[in-house]
Amino acid sequence: MSPKTKIIASTCLALCMSVGSFFVSAQQLNAEQQAQLNELKNTALQSDLSYQLIESLTTEVGHRLMGSEGDKKSIVWAVDKMKALGFDKVWTEEVTGSYWLRGDAKAKIIAPYPHDVVVLALGGSVGTAEKGLTANVAHFETFADLKAAPDNSLNGKIAFVSYQMERHIDGKGYGPAVGTRVTGAVVAAQKGASALVMRSVGTDNNRTAHTGVMRYKDGVKKIPAATLSNPDADLLVNQLKRGKPVSLFLKMTAKTDAEVIAKTANVIGEFTGSELPNEIVALGAHLDSWDVGTGALDDGLGIGMVVAAAHHIGQLPKRPKRTIPVILFAAEEVGLLGAKEYVKVHKNDMVNHAIGAEWDFGIGRIYKMTPGVGAQSLNAIRELAQYLAPLGVSLSPDNNAKGQSDMSALSNLGMPSINFSPDGSNYFDYHHTENDTLDKVEPEALKFNTAIYTMYAYFAAQAAVDFRK
Amino acid sequence: MSPKTKIIASTCLALCMSVGSFFVSAQQLNAEQQAQLNELKNTALQSDLSYQLIESLTTEVGHRLMGSEGDKKSIVWAVDKMKALGFDKVWTEEVTGSYWLRGDAKAKIIAPYPHDVVVLALGGSVGTAEKGLTANVAHFETFADLKAAPDNSLNGKIAFVSYQMERHIDGKGYGPAVGTRVTGAVVAAQKGASALVMRSVGTDNNRTAHTGVMRYKDGVKKIPAATLSNPDADLLVNQLKRGKPVSLFLKMTAKTDAEVIAKTANVIGEFTGSELPNEIVALGAHLDSWDVGTGALDDGLGIGMVVAAAHHIGQLPKRPKRTIPVILFAAEEVGLLGAKEYVKVHKNDMVNHAIGAEWDFGIGRIYKMTPGVGAQSLNAIRELAQYLAPLGVSLSPDNNAKGQSDMSALSNLGMPSINFSPDGSNYFDYHHTENDTLDKVEPEALKFNTAIYTMYAYFAAQAAVDFRK
Repeated sequence: MSPKTKIIASTCLALCMSVGSFFVSAQQLNAEQQAQLNELKNTALQSDLSYQLIESLTTEVGHRLMGSEGDKKSIVWAVDKMKALGFDKVWTEEVTGSYWLRGDAKAKIIAPYPHDVVVLALGGSVGTAEKGLTANVAHFETFADLKAAPDNSLNGKIAFVSYQMERHIDGKGYGPAVGTRVTGAVVAAQKGASALVMRSVGTDNNRTAHTGVMRYKDGVKKIPAATLSNPDADLLVNQLKRGKPVSLFLKMTAKTDAEVIAKTANVIGEFTGSELPNEIVALGAHLDSWDVGTGALDDGLGIGMVVAAAHHIGQLPKRPKRTIPVILFAAEEVGLLGAKEYVKVHKNDMVNHAIGAEWDFGIGRIYKMTPGVGAQSLNAIRELAQYLAPLGVSLSPDNNAKGQSDMSALSNLGMPSINFSPDGSNYFDYHHTENDTLDKVEPEALKFNTAIYTMYAYFAAQAAVDFRK
Repeated sequence: MSPKTKIIASTCLALCMSVGSFFVSAQQLNAEQQAQLNELKNTALQSDLSYQLIESLTTEVGHRLMGSEGDKKSIVWAVDKMKALGFDKVWTEEVTGSYWLRGDAKAKIIAPYPHDVVVLALGGSVGTAEKGLTANVAHFETFADLKAAPDNSLNGKIAFVSYQMERHIDGKGYGPAVGTRVTGAVVAAQKGASALVMRSVGTDNNRTAHTGVMRYKDGVKKIPAATLSNPDADLLVNQLKRGKPVSLFLKMTAKTDAEVIAKTANVIGEFTGSELPNEIVALGAHLDSWDVGTGALDDGLGIGMVVAAAHHIGQLPKRPKRTIPVILFAAEEVGLLGAKEYVKVHKNDMVNHAIGAEWDFGIGRIYKMTPGVGAQSLNAIRELAQYLAPLGVSLSPDNNAKGQSDMSALSNLGMPSINFSPDGSNYFDYHHTENDTLDKVEPEALKFNTAIYTMYAYFAAQAAVDFRK
């Protein structure tokens, strides 16, 4: 940079900073739009709307397991809230599936001494016989060890996998741990086990177990599958170390109600674009939740963030160019049923999904964004990154992101997306547990993340660039 | 200090430090004894005996509620362990009382929406009728507010006190919160309530409730009394803020088995003094526990610390002057029954209790000691404080301490004592909950605290001074 250029740059920098922007000649946003972006940031950082939405949902509706009363009530709640918050259009799109009933789950160590332990049925699990079952425990430190067990070696036993999820900022400990949850019951049944009991997939030290979805396989016996709280798993491991038999009683009344086709719905509200109304900047979260807490984090947080973000943008004097729909997906927890239905219904419209982002990753502050967009739009992404940098968001060098959770179904069909990464260190202390409650929400982080989603959505809706690959 | 004195002092300091002591001419301990004290410190800081004792107790015995199988088993465990650890004498002293059965406790919010909440019966509570009870909730922010309610104003209602315990390093938030637990059911019944439900006396944010002892009053109707987990109490408060009726279903099968006289025992093991065998330096902890966790902290920690401390001293070539008994008291949680029996049986011997200390305050590191001794022994206490100072223990200027828990019954009869204060900031996250489990023990803090108790007991058993008032 020459001295002359330096002076000009300095002058520009001073001018630009005075209106809160970073670019002399905006690549995507002009000066007025940059000022609006800045205004939106301040609004979102000062607003407690996202918190109030979560408070309302958890206090007035509660959990929202696919097919439950709370699930039905949440659809009405979401429609009412979005209408009250001035969305241009609000509608529902039906989603159907089966209704799994958790029932009760009880477990007790019988030997070496009688002791109640804390278990939860995995989502989709069958129950035990009415009187329950008592069996010796066969211990495996990892899922690989269980897979390596000889056929019939677990006849009459309860398979117990004690692998403990690791705590990491990006939640990467989840992947290696969750395999047992999803397909462990199939493998255990193939070896002859009467039931699968596994250490909860979580990082907490509470006597609260973690639930989550599991699957059976055609032709393999369906056996009950439950998770054990971390302290109880520790106890079982210590008892097993003594080398004497450890036996467990397990009674579960979980079942899938085959008679009932559960009806639920994706709830969609949009602020319609002023210039490119057919082009969609999608904001997503999921409306359903597991049934043991109130779903404040999973995914109350996402609902609060994306509804508030769209609302803030909707308060501007003029709609941005592109349409911003908030899609509150149904039945994410039980297998992305809402997202699958969405991409079926909107098949012909997928090409108009300019970009999308979901929030389904908990409490912590966002520190990184990773795009998954057409190469021609990477400069625009860098511009967005510069607007977000003062909030502590760094730009990943990768360009391979998919949307979170439901949005992955849309990304898989080519929709560009941005994945925002939060500090996920403590999310798996609460995820899918009875502890997923309002008190775990961190109001300041929530404001911060809502501001980031508001700025992102506004930017994407106004940008001249095409994000598509 | 003159330059000459300075040189002498420096030389002395160097000499003293070289043998790990602080006094040129020991007031209570001679140079050999100071060296032993130092050796004991190092032994305790390196030993994991106290941890191993807690691991064994929680893994092999489990909870130890007065009258339960675990309670009986723990007596055998304690006798065996102390014998194996070389105590000179080990014996039991029978303690009797009533046997309270927790049974099951279930609670569910009925309105505004059906939602299971987490409750625990308070120790000693009666149950509900078999079908449970459903009633509207009458909310009181404090126990004082409940006391101020007019007579009959709670007829047909469940009284709910939402006061939240504060977190403090010295646990001083416990006192203002625990009153409702002990006598709240009496006051609520006097106003006509069908049941008392109170926010748990604890500082955590888990869906685990806190139990603890409560009392009824002759002539006042016995109503069921339960605690609600903190997140559930928050939810109830938020729902009540809407101004619409909030109703709760409560079903408890708790009862006191009037037919059964429960038998348990104080377990005592001693290292007999070499010169003053009739003078007693008592180390205490309580062997019983609540029944919802495994009693690893309350009072597994105390058991581990005092048994290990005495054992370390017992490994010296020669017994100290005074006798060191470890008293593992029975039935502390249900009303200090073991301590009351102890002072009855040892009435004529109380005068020989030279000094005593208990450990019943959890996980954190000790940072302060407060004596409650005869004024003539305060210099000796200062000497002890100087030995403990390098471990971060400060000496309180007060001289009014009583023993913790059980030992308070002995202090009340004139036994001198020292109260060691730990960082209690997080103890009430776990105290009296399902979360009182082995994983909460902090091994390094435990070694540290064991070292302090070892040094204290050795010092008190060797000191020439009389601690009595």
